Amino acid sequence: MAIDYKKELESAAKTMIMVHKPDTLIKMIARLIVQKVRVSHSGILIHDSEKNSYVLTVSRGTTGLKIPTGFARMDEDNALIRFFRERLDKETFNEGALVYEEGKRLLSQNLGSETKQVLKNALYQMEIFDSVACIPSYYRDDLIGILLLGEKQNKERLSVEELDFFLALASDVAMAIRNAQLFHELELELEKKYRLFIHTTIALAAAIDAKDHYTHGHTARVTDLSLLIVKRLSQKNKSAFDGKFLENLHIASLLHDIGKIGIPESILNKNGPLNDEERMRIQEHPIIGVSILKPIGELETAALGVKYHHEKFDGSGYPEGLKGDQIPLIAAIISVADTFDAMTTDRPYRKGLSKEEATKEIARVSGKQLHPEIASVFVELSEEGKI
Amino acid sequence: MAIDYKKELESAAKTMIMVHKPDTLIKMIARLIVQKVRVSHSGILIHDSEKNSYVLTVSRGTTGLKIPTGFARMDEDNALIRFFRERLDKETFNEGALVYEEGKRLLSQNLGSETKQVLKNALYQMEIFDSVACIPSYYRDDLIGILLLGEKQNKERLSVEELDFFLALASDVAMAIRNAQLFHELELELEKKYRLFIHTTIALAAAIDAKDHYTHGHTARVTDLSLLIVKRLSQKNKSAFDGKFLENLHIASLLHDIGKIGIPESILNKNGPLNDEERMRIQEHPIIGVSILKPIGELETAALGVKYHHEKFDGSGYPEGLKGDQIPLIAAIISVADTFDAMTTDRPYRKGLSKEEATKEIARVSGKQLHPEIASVFVELSEEGKI
Repeated sequence: MAIDYKKELESAAKTMIMVHKPDTLIKMIARLIVQKVRVSHSGILIHDSEKNSYVLTVSRGTTGLKIPTGFARMDEDNALIRFFRERLDKETFNEGALVYEEGKRLLSQNLGSETKQVLKNALYQMEIFDSVACIPSYYRDDLIGILLLGEKQNKERLSVEELDFFLALASDVAMAIRNAQLFHELELELEKKYRLFIHTTIALAAAIDAKDHYTHGHTARVTDLSLLIVKRLSQKNKSAFDGKFLENLHIASLLHDIGKIGIPESILNKNGPLNDEERMRIQEHPIIGVSILKPIGELETAALGVKYHHEKFDGSGYPEGLKGDQIPLIAAIISVADTFDAMTTDRPYRKGLSKEEATKEIARVSGKQLHPEIASVFVELSEEGKI
Repeated sequence: MAIDYKKELESAAKTMIMVHKPDTLIKMIARLIVQKVRVSHSGILIHDSEKNSYVLTVSRGTTGLKIPTGFARMDEDNALIRFFRERLDKETFNEGALVYEEGKRLLSQNLGSETKQVLKNALYQMEIFDSVACIPSYYRDDLIGILLLGEKQNKERLSVEELDFFLALASDVAMAIRNAQLFHELELELEKKYRLFIHTTIALAAAIDAKDHYTHGHTARVTDLSLLIVKRLSQKNKSAFDGKFLENLHIASLLHDIGKIGIPESILNKNGPLNDEERMRIQEHPIIGVSILKPIGELETAALGVKYHHEKFDGSGYPEGLKGDQIPLIAAIISVADTFDAMTTDRPYRKGLSKEEATKEIARVSGKQLHPEIASVFVELSEEGKI
């Protein structure tokens, strides 16, 4: 016997477990089988537990195969699925492969009427897929998938040894796929939790924002602007702004005015210019914000954005009067976005500036009030009409 | 040759990839080797990427082995680690196993002075572990771990074939361990994200809580009480309160008064009883709360707790006047916790009740204002001194 592809497929099966994207993994397996076993095509039906059905992935090989539309997904009551799931007539089939010709032969023999009907329909399915043999893939007692093999390119039959080899391979494949599915589920769960966190933060920040009648929607706008700025900055200098920086900037922008919750409404909503004492109270909001976030260890970096977003590049800001590069970048970015939004928003005692006027003003105070590089990126974006 | 354990270990190695807890996996492998290969003991050194060192797990087997303290963790500059990581003198060792006796023999031969020193120290390490052979485990180019084998119980030497088998097995083991580590990292990341979400929600809810001067710490206390109640309820009826219910109750308790952010401070902090109009404004807070949370699809169930925590069992509550089992359980639980905390808190115009008085009051309004089963669980907890 010469199963020359055996070693290659075995070693490929071993490295499979490090492929954690189910789709990539399944395509890889189907393609490998076509290449190594030299069959006209191979297909893999994989269980989709969410939709309680089996999804088909096909590798076409050299001769091609047209799967009729509507067969890309099979319900659990499909005959081919039932044949392997319910392990009908265990004595005859012994949980092994279903070979088309063998199946045809058995059909004329003494089978239970239900088994016969399922087998008949399963063989009809195999005709549609132009498949000569189906190999089930179990993980523990669950049918994870079915491997559908097309004819060999040299028209030879698959030997018993080959079928046994595929059955063993299929159990490795089942495990690799189950592993990848679990991995994928965990990744989706992680994304979901992060979305929950961001959405809740957005909602609570917006609610706090709403207390300040004159700045409705301010938090959302500053967040959008900050993310726009950092996107452009990272195009210019990728290494300085990694995913973690973006995440922290996102959170810090959402929470930058959170400290306003500690300022009396009478001051926040005063209809007219503030006196010195009122201004001093308002200027406490970055420090109040930090004190709210202090217990959250994971937000240490984001808290810097909250604390220092009113510092100015020339050292004339608050709360600490930091200068230039002493001001954390995360705060300097929020500062530009915050300044622009404050200038363009109407107040009861003055009308907001137009975009163009405000952009000119940003350029004018660059290097004085604002970090020059960030201000220049902002002006660039504004002139391109991206703001 | 009779490597009778080979098939067993190979099939065990295949199922390993479904063990996603690195510690369990490593102990399982070390134990399997002792049992199947019948060595006196086996040890596995595994890379800990966070601490840049290798950690030892030992399976003692029947004869036992005492590892000196201080050898449970090895730095990257340890000779045994360096020997395999740096693949010193590739020609002589060919990236294979290090057999103690072979190593001793090579020591007397023509080796580079650095290689000789590292080899000498590595062999000394093997003496400490009473190990006759070390098998490296690589994943791609990284040294994931080292398998340390003790002497065979029948005192026979390990054959070249056996060593080759272990080398192949070690590469499967490396992959399984890497897979488990990646899984574990993802799980930790997931926990971290959830903690971030809960902590941020706690911080923001507490900040909003602080606006209402008379209810300082109210949110935290209601959350603790709600979780205490559901814990006891789930001891009585496990199936009704799964992890998802607990999670939703936790979130809903933290956010139950979030709508107060929309109520003017002048009403929240009024020093004296409220008039009808003010009371109506306050009673809007569950609806305001829901409107804040509405955009967050994931909080649909939690939002029910926020919306209905002022409904009463007899239908006399607000906002909808729901009755009995129309009130979602999540809201009915918060309602008991909320009622108790409101009764025990001092207000400027009345002193709060003692724990005992408030518990009696909870019992009295059970079935009228409060859900009878939940109220009775609360009374039970209070009488046990758990409140």
